[in-house]
Amino acid sequence: MDRTALSVTLMTTDSPVRLTTPDAPGQPTPTPELAQLYRGFESELLVPLWTEIGDLMPASPRPAASAHVWRWARLLELARRSGELVPVGRGGERRAIALANPGLGGAPYATPTLWAAIQYLNPREDAPVHRHTQHAFRFVVEGEGVWTVVDGDPVAMRRGDFLLTPGWRFHGHHNQSDTPMAWLDGLDIPFVHAVGSAFFELGPDVVSDHSTPARSRAERLWAHPGLRPVSAPDSTTSSPIAAYRWEHTDAALTDQLALESEGYPGVVEPGHAAVRFSNPTTGGDVLPTMRAEMHRLRGGTRTAARREVGSSVWQVFDGTGRILLGAGLDQHEWPVTRGDLFVVPSWVPLTLTADEPLDLFRFSDTPLFERLHSHRVQVEGAP
Amino acid sequence: MDRTALSVTLMTTDSPVRLTTPDAPGQPTPTPELAQLYRGFESELLVPLWTEIGDLMPASPRPAASAHVWRWARLLELARRSGELVPVGRGGERRAIALANPGLGGAPYATPTLWAAIQYLNPREDAPVHRHTQHAFRFVVEGEGVWTVVDGDPVAMRRGDFLLTPGWRFHGHHNQSDTPMAWLDGLDIPFVHAVGSAFFELGPDVVSDHSTPARSRAERLWAHPGLRPVSAPDSTTSSPIAAYRWEHTDAALTDQLALESEGYPGVVEPGHAAVRFSNPTTGGDVLPTMRAEMHRLRGGTRTAARREVGSSVWQVFDGTGRILLGAGLDQHEWPVTRGDLFVVPSWVPLTLTADEPLDLFRFSDTPLFERLHSHRVQVEGAP
Amino acid sequence: MDRTALSVTLMTTDSPVRLTTPDAPGQPTPTPELAQLYRGFESELLVPLWTEIGDLMPASPRPAASAHVWRWARLLELARRSGELVPVGRGGERRAIALANPGLGGAPYATPTLWAAIQYLNPREDAPVHRHTQHAFRFVVEGEGVWTVVDGDPVAMRRGDFLLTPGWRFHGHHNQSDTPMAWLDGLDIPFVHAVGSAFFELGPDVVSDHSTPARSRAERLWAHPGLRPVSAPDSTTSSPIAAYRWEHTDAALTDQLALESEGYPGVVEPGHAAVRFSNPTTGGDVLPTMRAEMHRLRGGTRTAARREVGSSVWQVFDGTGRILLGAGLDQHEWPVTRGDLFVVPSWVPLTLTADEPLDLFRFSDTPLFERLHSHRVQVEGAP
Amino acid sequence: MDRTALSVTLMTTDSPVRLTTPDAPGQPTPTPELAQLYRGFESELLVPLWTEIGDLMPASPRPAASAHVWRWARLLELARRSGELVPVGRGGERRAIALANPGLGGAPYATPTLWAAIQYLNPREDAPVHRHTQHAFRFVVEGEGVWTVVDGDPVAMRRGDFLLTPGWRFHGHHNQSDTPMAWLDGLDIPFVHAVGSAFFELGPDVVSDHSTPARSRAERLWAHPGLRPVSAPDSTTSSPIAAYRWEHTDAALTDQLALESEGYPGVVEPGHAAVRFSNPTTGGDVLPTMRAEMHRLRGGTRTAARREVGSSVWQVFDGTGRILLGAGLDQHEWPVTRGDLFVVPSWVPLTLTADEPLDLFRFSDTPLFERLHSHRVQVEGAP
Repeated sequence: MDRTALSVTLMTTDSPVRLTTPDAPGQPTPTPELAQLYRGFESELLVPLWTEIGDLMPASPRPAASAHVWRWARLLELARRSGELVPVGRGGERRAIALANPGLGGAPYATPTLWAAIQYLNPREDAPVHRHTQHAFRFVVEGEGVWTVVDGDPVAMRRGDFLLTPGWRFHGHHNQSDTPMAWLDGLDIPFVHAVGSAFFELGPDVVSDHSTPARSRAERLWAHPGLRPVSAPDSTTSSPIAAYRWEHTDAALTDQLALESEGYPGVVEPGHAAVRFSNPTTGGDVLPTMRAEMHRLRGGTRTAARREVGSSVWQVFDGTGRILLGAGLDQHEWPVTRGDLFVVPSWVPLTLTADEPLDLFRFSDTPLFERLHSHRVQVEGAP
Repeated sequence: MDRTALSVTLMTTDSPVRLTTPDAPGQPTPTPELAQLYRGFESELLVPLWTEIGDLMPASPRPAASAHVWRWARLLELARRSGELVPVGRGGERRAIALANPGLGGAPYATPTLWAAIQYLNPREDAPVHRHTQHAFRFVVEGEGVWTVVDGDPVAMRRGDFLLTPGWRFHGHHNQSDTPMAWLDGLDIPFVHAVGSAFFELGPDVVSDHSTPARSRAERLWAHPGLRPVSAPDSTTSSPIAAYRWEHTDAALTDQLALESEGYPGVVEPGHAAVRFSNPTTGGDVLPTMRAEMHRLRGGTRTAARREVGSSVWQVFDGTGRILLGAGLDQHEWPVTRGDLFVVPSWVPLTLTADEPLDLFRFSDTPLFERLHSHRVQVEGAP
Repeated sequence: MDRTALSVTLMTTDSPVRLTTPDAPGQPTPTPELAQLYRGFESELLVPLWTEIGDLMPASPRPAASAHVWRWARLLELARRSGELVPVGRGGERRAIALANPGLGGAPYATPTLWAAIQYLNPREDAPVHRHTQHAFRFVVEGEGVWTVVDGDPVAMRRGDFLLTPGWRFHGHHNQSDTPMAWLDGLDIPFVHAVGSAFFELGPDVVSDHSTPARSRAERLWAHPGLRPVSAPDSTTSSPIAAYRWEHTDAALTDQLALESEGYPGVVEPGHAAVRFSNPTTGGDVLPTMRAEMHRLRGGTRTAARREVGSSVWQVFDGTGRILLGAGLDQHEWPVTRGDLFVVPSWVPLTLTADEPLDLFRFSDTPLFERLHSHRVQVEGAP
Repeated sequence: MDRTALSVTLMTTDSPVRLTTPDAPGQPTPTPELAQLYRGFESELLVPLWTEIGDLMPASPRPAASAHVWRWARLLELARRSGELVPVGRGGERRAIALANPGLGGAPYATPTLWAAIQYLNPREDAPVHRHTQHAFRFVVEGEGVWTVVDGDPVAMRRGDFLLTPGWRFHGHHNQSDTPMAWLDGLDIPFVHAVGSAFFELGPDVVSDHSTPARSRAERLWAHPGLRPVSAPDSTTSSPIAAYRWEHTDAALTDQLALESEGYPGVVEPGHAAVRFSNPTTGGDVLPTMRAEMHRLRGGTRTAARREVGSSVWQVFDGTGRILLGAGLDQHEWPVTRGDLFVVPSWVPLTLTADEPLDLFRFSDTPLFERLHSHRVQVEGAP
């Protein structure tokens, strides 16, 4: 990956055809005078709207990012090799390898707003402590043995767990086991980079606390259903729950499907259960910029096609199935299995098919649009 | 401006030095094995964090956009020439010419999130009706004679007026006078383009109502201080006030300076009055993505250096002065006069000096950061 | 008014029939054992629900307060006489005479939550400075010459003006003219008394500033349509606008009726314009516990019957008309003219008829219900 | 309890001395003219402020309600006797016996805003279905065997459980066991009665579903820590969690004390753990008008004296201790044990002493004051 490519872009347009070619409607006749005018624009750092409006203001979102699938087996193989060749420490900070959306010019961005990476820690390794304004989470598709230490609170990481590192909290990781561990990192790096709100600060080179409690202190205070410590402030902008444990997520999904079987509401659509990780102090999303959810499909379920403004990244947690992305000629279907990651760009329809029971983790930039009142959703067959 | 340049970028990094060159701290030793690993990343559409973290996660914002000044006299000259050579109509939609920040690779973006353009309408011309999810406003530095018709409500445009076209409202313009008119357009086009939330719809080719009322119906309902129509809904995501008239803005600024003279609070700092245009149904910003303000400095005032997360565009409304942008070796001062526009990138310190009484219009992307809880401000001399 | 009467009640029930007499459905058979049980309840400070549920939980609100009209002419006469006999000063604090709803057992309460009084100040008199957690406003039906000084800011009072004294602000009044002045005071005294949140503190015996500016400093900062001082905090629980001037209220109402004449929306119903005084920092009500509005009816208008949860007090500002209150056998109509006050208890239907153009001021406890999500409205003929 | 007593009052004043006797500061000299004026007030339904201000606007809250303790043993005895003598059914609706605060003139009100009652259901009995705008909850100090059916969803009641019936939900109860069961009911009846927002509607005479699931459907959807069903609406004004189970409450309190032992924050003050039952869709209180909490004190703990605006009712859940209420000469201490109930009026200081480990349930009207921005708290020794 060369440097130029990296520095290129957040959002290129993939449109092969200009709506505003000189003979397009509303375009002025090319003349020497016009050419001179355009040269005048260029020398004054100006661009006319009338030649660009087709790209800038399309009838509906035409995201630069592409739908794409990354295979977990291949990611893991490269991560393991990195574990052999690349140290973890001050400077590089993390042994993390990011998905680079093929539509985004080589930048290490899964979507224009979201970062997704596999992170890998060898036995007995520490990832050094730092903090940044970018919000982060971890999701564990397999393995255990690492603790992430967030503001001094060690948080165990185990298969199925969803773990938070809200912005500007010091954090490092340590692997206390004899086996390496890999997991998914999600951050809002591309968004923060684009809008210019990145701050970063180094902490100690090793984590302050190598203890290995089964539950973090944050969980002991906050992970009781509907209960909050009276000593806590009214609300916090990110969730205070450091870890959402698989046992709870699994139970909630199981309950939804059982309620459906008994004839009661709860699932999103037939055969499709889903929970959202939420901030117990507000009821809203866990992080200001990112939504996270777990979905479970009964074997044989095919979801209605659904598209929405904003982008998302999915990871198969368990089972196998197929994902259908796009519409018309731009439609493509991929088989997916445990650990596989895929990206859904803005306004691209997605249909999931579960060949057998299928669990999927999803994160998205939906909070941006909800907070800015520009969210839109379209579901096949909905009124 | 060639197509490639346009499609390039929201946010390139201008950093001349990689923090993560192979011999930088934390980087692995270059070996054939490492080279092979990196080729593996590339072929799988992956990018390691450890080589990019210096760019992606800087200690403080390193915006790709540059500080820059555009001269009104030159803009107006090119706009007039466009009035002679370029028709306004369906397809091109608007005779608007956008500021293209020199740091943003040729894209017609004043900053990574903000669009700023001069729009020009000849006598008796109509700009056709359309609507889009991008939020828009107009600010009039000189002239009159045009009405912008928003959802059927004609809104007169006059010097000093600030006019709103919130997202997804049909709107067109018509010049009812015998002289051309130019004004400033501000939109969130770059942001909407980057995150993929653009929708656009055509309306009629000519505006529905060529009447020329002095006040819009929206103003008659809403532009009474502290009063709201009982018939209206509780709150709207954008301000219902179609036009903020100069007479009110001027009076508010005059009052603040008079209060200061009498020894009472009200100004932002000595000699510096400022009002924010606000949504009377919420008290918040006029649009979900943009803040707009008018500032007035007494002659001789020099403001404290101030920097904040997010970017802004300023236009001198009246008077002359100097703007000092940046810090240390990156600092530069420009003289400015009526109509001149300048851009302040994220976290770049700004100092204003008024050689004589100076009025400035400002708009920014601050609401993004406030709604996402990532706003930061630093004022010289503040605790 | 004797002491016992005053101390009686917030809310007696006017229900002439017990739903739960011993032979009512669900009541136990009277026996000596039952009588003994009931004596046991009494001695233990207990009351059974089954005998009281009809009163406590009626099918719809059965307010203790009655609909009633007080005549301004008579109020003014008694206020003038008070001006001759009763000094204003420390201890008594204010020469204010409160409406005592006939249904509320002699307490000086217009409704269970609202206080309404005529206040009277002789030429050159001062009302001493104090503050209290009760929120207050003034409305001026006629006269001028008094300034109310709120936290040191003198606020002129003139016919048609609506003036705020939010809770816990020091305030006093002074009459700088050679004529006495009377006005309407509205407070949430009954509510605050009932729930036990009253705090009170004395200030100086005379007001600190006897100057007589035409506009208060608060107005100079805040009474500009849609504009807010950048130096101010984001939001305040009460409106920062000290005075809502009649010229603006009148213009807003005039605009609404003109829009109606031109065929555009804006009025509440045909011939009925209305504005709500609002907090420009939130768009909500001026005070946490009270809503205030001004209504204007064209001559000949008869409003739809309307009832809502919560109580209100109205004062005729100009014109003459009739008010119809209640339903069925409990309905009564009163003619009203300038200055007359009337009370609308919870859930009692109100119809206004304007014999000639009619302006009415209204205040209510609606914010309580909106904030607690228990507001209900029913309008005759509405779906 | 006679009818007159019931209808008396929300808030009488217990002040034995008028601040505004005729010879008090600021009072006019008694003369025949003054007497005539006062008669004029009375005949016109008017009350002067200057004679009442001492009662109406005290320096700090002087609640009519008294501190008082009700003994569970005695309540239970009377409830059992009611079970023998009083049927449950249509008309009487519930076999509930309410605390009547000695300061509130015989009304069945624990405080001016809160209702607290013991409810009792015999084996195999049904309490008929109805709904009302009053919000309700149940707290179970001992026993089990009853299901409360809320909008068709059967909710088991067991020792330590806190159960919700938000306003306007149909609900009935049924005892499926062979033993009677008693529990605490809490409602906002006095507040709703005072402000006139009571609506009530009958449902079927027997509950629709006599099944006896261990968990309600509402719990299966909502009682998973930090997880919410994607299919649910964004927020609801009351908590969707039908039952907060003792096992979770107990675990949360145990965790807080364990964290304290390990040297970490979490408890309210030394030896004093506390959790608040919360609405997972907002993070706020479970009901718009009522707060509910569980407190646990280590044996030997004595809390700092604390007073706050608003009233509360406490029930000892386990252990024995002492409560100290009031200040100065008005101070009184009571020993309390399992099931005992006590009332804390507005602004009355409370100190709890745990002779042995002590668990207490508490509910209060705090949300009223927080939503109206008039909450105040004072803690002994706090800055």
